[in-house]
Amino acid sequence: MRADLALVGFGNVGRRFARLIEERRDWLSLDYDLECRIVGIATRHHGAVFRDAGLDAVGLAVQMEAGHPIVESGTEAADGLDVIRRLADGDAPVKVLIETTTLDIKAGQPAIDHVRAALQSGCHAVTANKGPAAFAFEELSALAADRDRSFLFEGAVMDGVPIFNLVRETLPAVQITGFRGVVNSTTNHILSALEDGEGFDAALERMQAAGIAEADPSLDVDGWDAAAKVSALANVFMRARTTPLAVEREGIGPATARLAMAAKARGARVRLVASARTTPDGVVTSVRPVELPETDLLAGLRGMANALVLETDLLGEIAICQMSGSLTQTAYALLSDLLTIRRRQAPPPHTVSR
Amino acid sequence: MRADLALVGFGNVGRRFARLIEERRDWLSLDYDLECRIVGIATRHHGAVFRDAGLDAVGLAVQMEAGHPIVESGTEAADGLDVIRRLADGDAPVKVLIETTTLDIKAGQPAIDHVRAALQSGCHAVTANKGPAAFAFEELSALAADRDRSFLFEGAVMDGVPIFNLVRETLPAVQITGFRGVVNSTTNHILSALEDGEGFDAALERMQAAGIAEADPSLDVDGWDAAAKVSALANVFMRARTTPLAVEREGIGPATARLAMAAKARGARVRLVASARTTPDGVVTSVRPVELPETDLLAGLRGMANALVLETDLLGEIAICQMSGSLTQTAYALLSDLLTIRRRQAPPPHTVSR
Repeated sequence: MRADLALVGFGNVGRRFARLIEERRDWLSLDYDLECRIVGIATRHHGAVFRDAGLDAVGLAVQMEAGHPIVESGTEAADGLDVIRRLADGDAPVKVLIETTTLDIKAGQPAIDHVRAALQSGCHAVTANKGPAAFAFEELSALAADRDRSFLFEGAVMDGVPIFNLVRETLPAVQITGFRGVVNSTTNHILSALEDGEGFDAALERMQAAGIAEADPSLDVDGWDAAAKVSALANVFMRARTTPLAVEREGIGPATARLAMAAKARGARVRLVASARTTPDGVVTSVRPVELPETDLLAGLRGMANALVLETDLLGEIAICQMSGSLTQTAYALLSDLLTIRRRQAPPPHTVSR
Repeated sequence: MRADLALVGFGNVGRRFARLIEERRDWLSLDYDLECRIVGIATRHHGAVFRDAGLDAVGLAVQMEAGHPIVESGTEAADGLDVIRRLADGDAPVKVLIETTTLDIKAGQPAIDHVRAALQSGCHAVTANKGPAAFAFEELSALAADRDRSFLFEGAVMDGVPIFNLVRETLPAVQITGFRGVVNSTTNHILSALEDGEGFDAALERMQAAGIAEADPSLDVDGWDAAAKVSALANVFMRARTTPLAVEREGIGPATARLAMAAKARGARVRLVASARTTPDGVVTSVRPVELPETDLLAGLRGMANALVLETDLLGEIAICQMSGSLTQTAYALLSDLLTIRRRQAPPPHTVSR
């Protein structure tokens, strides 16, 4: 089965995805009967391209990494929305938007517009962005159902470690009554440093130098990234109909250093905990530094380690943990969503019985 | 869609499953278009029954719990294999063996014979037993593929927490290169007690009094239960073609108490670690007490908590943790396998697009 893909967003994650598709091409064909062609690419600063017959995406990635625009004569496209429109006009049996643009975390854009445009025009939509599920899950999932298309976003939380897929594919009939987790690596790195006695500013500067924290770290340290993840998780698992703006949010700062060291002296740990719980007034979501006993699973997470503890009706608490993060993991999330779409078309025969 | 079920084994897990099916009857019908009928039940000491029109399984569970045989005039069956034969002769579109007999952990029987008989006669086979996957995974999965039927065993490791389903359903294209875990609750309970200073015999007696350890605890403390789980995991994830007899196995005993306390004094922990790794000579599996640094995820597990850390090519290490165990969890594992079979028939329309 042929699938045409349009990559809207072609940063580190999008380029790693293009290479992963290439690395696993034989495997995708043999085990999944899936022949992927990347027909469109839209970048932020290096132009947008489209070609019905398929592009050399890995070649274009190399070109872009050398600082060149990716446009050649005959392939020019206007922008992401134009690339999506031309993808939709094609005749492939499966057409998929792969959305990895830079997110305005306080508005969820432009990812929401891209996903909406794809679904409205009959394409499937896969995104690594939190925005669509955090701000517009009800609208976009209803639109997907109406058009009989998939809207998937495994990469939005904990990279490629299955979270949304875990609940959807392996926990049928289980109700998620709440959850709590450590889902932001930058703040977790800083908290690990603080409890070792480093000052907040020094720790942050070191993380920035190492490329772990952004030049503008406020989205991480003020809890916005975690709030968007909580919102997405609560919308999907608990039908919370919330947005990141409604999450009770407290970040970390210089004052947290004292808390973290005092906690450690008591045999406890401070972690930036993202949580949701069911109350008589609906789902309450929050992000805040919480002191946890050393025996708590979340207390044991250091550095890049993330974890989510799901509270369920039938299985009690279960947790899934990511020990490290990488670009490949986020790219894998996109690939796993693509394979979900493939399986929904019709399961390849040999995977039916095992 | 109608599914006829035969429950071979009707102990605590089988009876909890019968009740769970009843509790969730409306939900199974509405959300999964699945109408389950329990047509056969085989017990160890209370007889075996079969009725084409369906049995009152919950009523029979109550009857059995009161100490009565479950056989009534007109429903007598000879034994488990007879119940499976009569299930296979029925005309339901989906016929499923639910196998929960008491296992001979050193031979995998009688579960293997039951699963084989079911698959050979055109039924699907679901079991909570480790035996079939630990001793005969290659044979039984090939048989299932040949007959276009499912052979599923989510409950064999970590009860209802998805392990086999996690890998099969949510990690396509990911290669499992090894794993390590704490998968036996009795020994973990004892180790928690030992590091708190209790003696081995005293801890074991206390666990037996609390119903956590068996009257004959050797299968747990000698590592057989964990070895069967390692074997099943290695066979499924790494095509190891091994058996529990080939697992390097060292249990815990009075001498472990000193190790556990000494480790704790050093800020470390002893856990009974079940592991598999890829070597040039094939997959090597082992179960043994291992001293772990306090920061290790497995070191933090106490009492009933279990966890499995998967080593993967694309996602690094990921872990899934069960915080507590219960009968309901094991019964849920059987239900989740039943729902996998249902989904493989044809996805219910409303789950296709979301």
